[in-house]
Amino acid sequence: MSRRIAVGVLGATGTVGQKLVRLLAGHPWFEVRRLMASERSVGKPYGRVVHWLEPEPLPPDLAAMPVEPAEPGGCALVLSALDAAAARSIEPRFTAAGCAVVSNASAHRLDPVVPLVVPEVNPDHLQLLRRQPWSGSLVTNPNCVVAGLALVLKPLQDAFGVEAVELTTLQAASGAGFPGVAALDILGNVIPGIANEEQKIASEPCKILGSLADGRVIEAPIVISVQTTRVPIVDGHLLSMSVRLGRRTTPARVAAALQRFHAPEHVRALPSAPPAPLALLTHELAPQPRLHVGLGAGMTVSIGQIRPCPLLDVRLVALVHNTIRGAAGAALLNAELMVREGVV
Amino acid sequence: MSRRIAVGVLGATGTVGQKLVRLLAGHPWFEVRRLMASERSVGKPYGRVVHWLEPEPLPPDLAAMPVEPAEPGGCALVLSALDAAAARSIEPRFTAAGCAVVSNASAHRLDPVVPLVVPEVNPDHLQLLRRQPWSGSLVTNPNCVVAGLALVLKPLQDAFGVEAVELTTLQAASGAGFPGVAALDILGNVIPGIANEEQKIASEPCKILGSLADGRVIEAPIVISVQTTRVPIVDGHLLSMSVRLGRRTTPARVAAALQRFHAPEHVRALPSAPPAPLALLTHELAPQPRLHVGLGAGMTVSIGQIRPCPLLDVRLVALVHNTIRGAAGAALLNAELMVREGVV
Amino acid sequence: MSRRIAVGVLGATGTVGQKLVRLLAGHPWFEVRRLMASERSVGKPYGRVVHWLEPEPLPPDLAAMPVEPAEPGGCALVLSALDAAAARSIEPRFTAAGCAVVSNASAHRLDPVVPLVVPEVNPDHLQLLRRQPWSGSLVTNPNCVVAGLALVLKPLQDAFGVEAVELTTLQAASGAGFPGVAALDILGNVIPGIANEEQKIASEPCKILGSLADGRVIEAPIVISVQTTRVPIVDGHLLSMSVRLGRRTTPARVAAALQRFHAPEHVRALPSAPPAPLALLTHELAPQPRLHVGLGAGMTVSIGQIRPCPLLDVRLVALVHNTIRGAAGAALLNAELMVREGVV
Amino acid sequence: MSRRIAVGVLGATGTVGQKLVRLLAGHPWFEVRRLMASERSVGKPYGRVVHWLEPEPLPPDLAAMPVEPAEPGGCALVLSALDAAAARSIEPRFTAAGCAVVSNASAHRLDPVVPLVVPEVNPDHLQLLRRQPWSGSLVTNPNCVVAGLALVLKPLQDAFGVEAVELTTLQAASGAGFPGVAALDILGNVIPGIANEEQKIASEPCKILGSLADGRVIEAPIVISVQTTRVPIVDGHLLSMSVRLGRRTTPARVAAALQRFHAPEHVRALPSAPPAPLALLTHELAPQPRLHVGLGAGMTVSIGQIRPCPLLDVRLVALVHNTIRGAAGAALLNAELMVREGVV
Repeated sequence: MSRRIAVGVLGATGTVGQKLVRLLAGHPWFEVRRLMASERSVGKPYGRVVHWLEPEPLPPDLAAMPVEPAEPGGCALVLSALDAAAARSIEPRFTAAGCAVVSNASAHRLDPVVPLVVPEVNPDHLQLLRRQPWSGSLVTNPNCVVAGLALVLKPLQDAFGVEAVELTTLQAASGAGFPGVAALDILGNVIPGIANEEQKIASEPCKILGSLADGRVIEAPIVISVQTTRVPIVDGHLLSMSVRLGRRTTPARVAAALQRFHAPEHVRALPSAPPAPLALLTHELAPQPRLHVGLGAGMTVSIGQIRPCPLLDVRLVALVHNTIRGAAGAALLNAELMVREGVV
Repeated sequence: MSRRIAVGVLGATGTVGQKLVRLLAGHPWFEVRRLMASERSVGKPYGRVVHWLEPEPLPPDLAAMPVEPAEPGGCALVLSALDAAAARSIEPRFTAAGCAVVSNASAHRLDPVVPLVVPEVNPDHLQLLRRQPWSGSLVTNPNCVVAGLALVLKPLQDAFGVEAVELTTLQAASGAGFPGVAALDILGNVIPGIANEEQKIASEPCKILGSLADGRVIEAPIVISVQTTRVPIVDGHLLSMSVRLGRRTTPARVAAALQRFHAPEHVRALPSAPPAPLALLTHELAPQPRLHVGLGAGMTVSIGQIRPCPLLDVRLVALVHNTIRGAAGAALLNAELMVREGVV
Repeated sequence: MSRRIAVGVLGATGTVGQKLVRLLAGHPWFEVRRLMASERSVGKPYGRVVHWLEPEPLPPDLAAMPVEPAEPGGCALVLSALDAAAARSIEPRFTAAGCAVVSNASAHRLDPVVPLVVPEVNPDHLQLLRRQPWSGSLVTNPNCVVAGLALVLKPLQDAFGVEAVELTTLQAASGAGFPGVAALDILGNVIPGIANEEQKIASEPCKILGSLADGRVIEAPIVISVQTTRVPIVDGHLLSMSVRLGRRTTPARVAAALQRFHAPEHVRALPSAPPAPLALLTHELAPQPRLHVGLGAGMTVSIGQIRPCPLLDVRLVALVHNTIRGAAGAALLNAELMVREGVV
Repeated sequence: MSRRIAVGVLGATGTVGQKLVRLLAGHPWFEVRRLMASERSVGKPYGRVVHWLEPEPLPPDLAAMPVEPAEPGGCALVLSALDAAAARSIEPRFTAAGCAVVSNASAHRLDPVVPLVVPEVNPDHLQLLRRQPWSGSLVTNPNCVVAGLALVLKPLQDAFGVEAVELTTLQAASGAGFPGVAALDILGNVIPGIANEEQKIASEPCKILGSLADGRVIEAPIVISVQTTRVPIVDGHLLSMSVRLGRRTTPARVAAALQRFHAPEHVRALPSAPPAPLALLTHELAPQPRLHVGLGAGMTVSIGQIRPCPLLDVRLVALVHNTIRGAAGAALLNAELMVREGVV
């Protein structure tokens, strides 16, 4: 790949957008060509309008790039960090114009012809692209909690079957974007609920873990009961879950199944794929957001606390970096998979 | 009651101990007569050795009171805020000497002859006192999470039966006492586990919700699966739970059962009993520790998020003030109950 | 005072507005008659539109009260929690209509005919009211930091003279209202600066500590150098300051001057006046926001760390409850003073 | 340098010790050969006894290394992360045995024959080593606040002279080590004071910024007035300061002096030296701990808020990574300087 692929970012000024911009800076395959955002930012230098929250400084060349309107042109590949409402109207304009769109938005995730992909879990779902009626192609990544949940459930599904999940999430403030959660709501507090989150968590894993038949996804029949909460931390969603498996087993076998899980070889070779998608932590008080959220550059899901559940089958706690594995990194990995598969 | 009852506090310098001291200051029935703590504090003025963390100033007369060794004498009633190890050896010295001991420690909670009491739930368990072989009497209150859990489960048990609970807790730092949790462990972080906590949560509710037969407690056969977590807040344990009931019902009926729950009249009349032991909050994002932990002066458990569970029967979130309803206030209410029942 | 005075609240849905509403509920002199807020809330029940953040529940009768537009009528006394821009245009409509307006807004604080009052410091400045050209009257309270600073400087000015102050503030999130500071900006962070705050802190104390001559305020010539910061706490502004006095003295004498400071008798008798406007804390690590912000029901300013400054004269740290002594409580105390002085 | 220098770490299990261990892992010149800690850890694998708080996992080979007692032998170079009391007795045993000791402890910093060095500021102070009476050599780095303060003052001293500093610090929890600050003391709180910190901040800069004459340091006559505070953040000390310069100038010239500051060439070439020791941030609300503490891999001090002080001369805010530039990284850079200068 002698020349890098020109990429546009939709919703470039938001928190996921700027995370994408940072991950794309220095990417071996991609080059940021267009930064697109809403009307009021258009025409101004990106560095002037973005409320930059990344710990690394914004590279000067990107800071100087003028923000453009969200219209197709100039890039065959577009990464979308739009919110759901904007994505619903804007992304189709790009697919209609022949673009490959990789979207973090929830708008089209459950559309039967749109692949909802976690590359280590269901890369074959890209086959749905053949059924897309527009000239471009649209691939989505899941909700930030689901990005971690699907990775944890996949090896369990393969080894034992998964029937049901009881889940309580402890989610970080960055999941709400900026300005997002008000300080007065979350400082020294926990908020028991996140708007629209629970329905996504209950439905998206069934599609991701579904099987392909005749170019369609047959959803996996997994019952997911979830209570979301927001806790006063910056990054990292923690999932406290209990799982009913298809057949009885031991925590040791569950741990072994999670431990040996790995991505298909062509996925493992993608630039943003972590060395291991799952990390089993043996420390007795792991995983912890502040210590472990950055494992695998934010792309590795950490797991701990595996033990028997006296009611269902197995209990465990998982940790997913919500804005990397759960958003920007997820979209980027999907984009890399599309390039690898020749879609872009 | 023309004269107030002299009370001693065991473990008076700890966080629960000082909360007891504050609640006792100005109590209509009780008067702090002795402040007892470990060797290294003995003989010094209480105000000099206590690391006072209460938001109200320590009253000067209590600050000046010399700390005494943990030996019986001078008080017929003793409130114990000792840790489990100390309680195991020290509390028996007091009951042997004829004292009435109300203990917040876990040491004797599961002893078959020791009542484990939440006055609104199982005041009749005081009958166990008759079987105590020592000349005094010992009553315990439950673990801080269980204090809330038992209050939530009691009306459900009465109305529908309770078979099982899937529980994830989000617990405040004050539950660990002082110095307790290190700032470096919890700032911007969540810790998935609390030492020895989960076994208490799984076992204590079965005793509290058990029935009396022949002066013995027959434990309630409730399966409790729990994951504890510590979150960076000061006060208030949040319980995210899903309950399997004995018979099918609707969330509305569950809410109604919780709503109409009240303490027996003689309990309601105790000085530390809240107007209502349970408060159903209808705000869509309730309960929240910072906003609701102080309801009923910290003695009311708040409940919200009641809805169907697609896997068990009903989901809800409860909030308990861990150092008041879950510790100092619980012990005090038990002491009041003992006075009312003529045990003291 | 057999009947309570009807009071209207301007900006009733904001954080200062709701704090006023709570302080007024149960007030011995005042009764909330009108809750006024912006267009989009008008006509709806207050409880439906306010994002209630107080730790006590909103009383049901106030929750049911319909929000009204910000127009005069029905109340001789109006407490304003408007922001500066709204205050600039709305408050004059009320004074023109003959209302007594007590405002927390900065809009008119430096107007030469508008008293900027801290009742314990400069109650005589109410004399400026005689020069107000409108039929009603307008009194303001200072910025939240200045509310504490003026109280600390007053006894020093009286005893030694005050020439200059070097000040760094550590301010709580509640000072920015709601939604105010974004969680992503302040969680685990400090923000070195608050918009428009430093100019208020540098100028308002000079007016408050100024003397009256010919019905005009001669500003006190105090040089104030200030750096503001925002820290991740909910309530309580901490002031780290070094003061150059008019004449040399000792920290002990500074402490004594602060210790013996008290309000004039007619101010001390007001319902919202604290037992002591200043509290000298002797604990070596005081004052601390979480422990001391509630002293005097939030109306007492705590002081500690008094010691020599090797460069100016004396160093100390003060703590002010920014939304009570620094906002809602300040306005209320001013309203009480106006009633006491016969202005209302 | 074909082979790496064997290094021992004293106090390897503490927070600064483990930061040193992490920085040494993969260091181009150094290789960790001995991990030394207190009696109760000796003989156990390092990974078993260290409470690892770094965001990167502990490398397995280091985890397996047995902890050794703090006795000389096997390493010509020792990095000490001992606390002051331990350092006072232990470090001399190493220098007596001929070791080169680089210490982060405060014990010997003000000893007239011990260089207190910030390599970009006073590398020439290594000349003091000639006066050391023991066979080895001992070099110290300053207190964590001073590490940043000295770097900020050096260019001002060179350009304008520095007479006095008014300073308020906002310090992170990691500065207190582990367990250090209790969560209950700092969650939602600010603590106005840090034991023994202010005297170090007032004295150490005078030595660092002093001049050499006859192989002795003539202290710089700078008056430093400081109030320390602890704030609820993990890493990064913020310094709010006002400086009286030797001669009047403008903020623009102050900024220019800071901007053009750079290390001597031989220091700049050291492996742990950052590209720039100072970074002037132009964003109006910079520097912020969470966003900027990692600049230059934690070795760059960020500066913002430069403006005139109406009382002294110039105000500014600086940010220093307290456990890297202020501790482990400082020691490491000193060790590199000693190697470069042929002391090791």
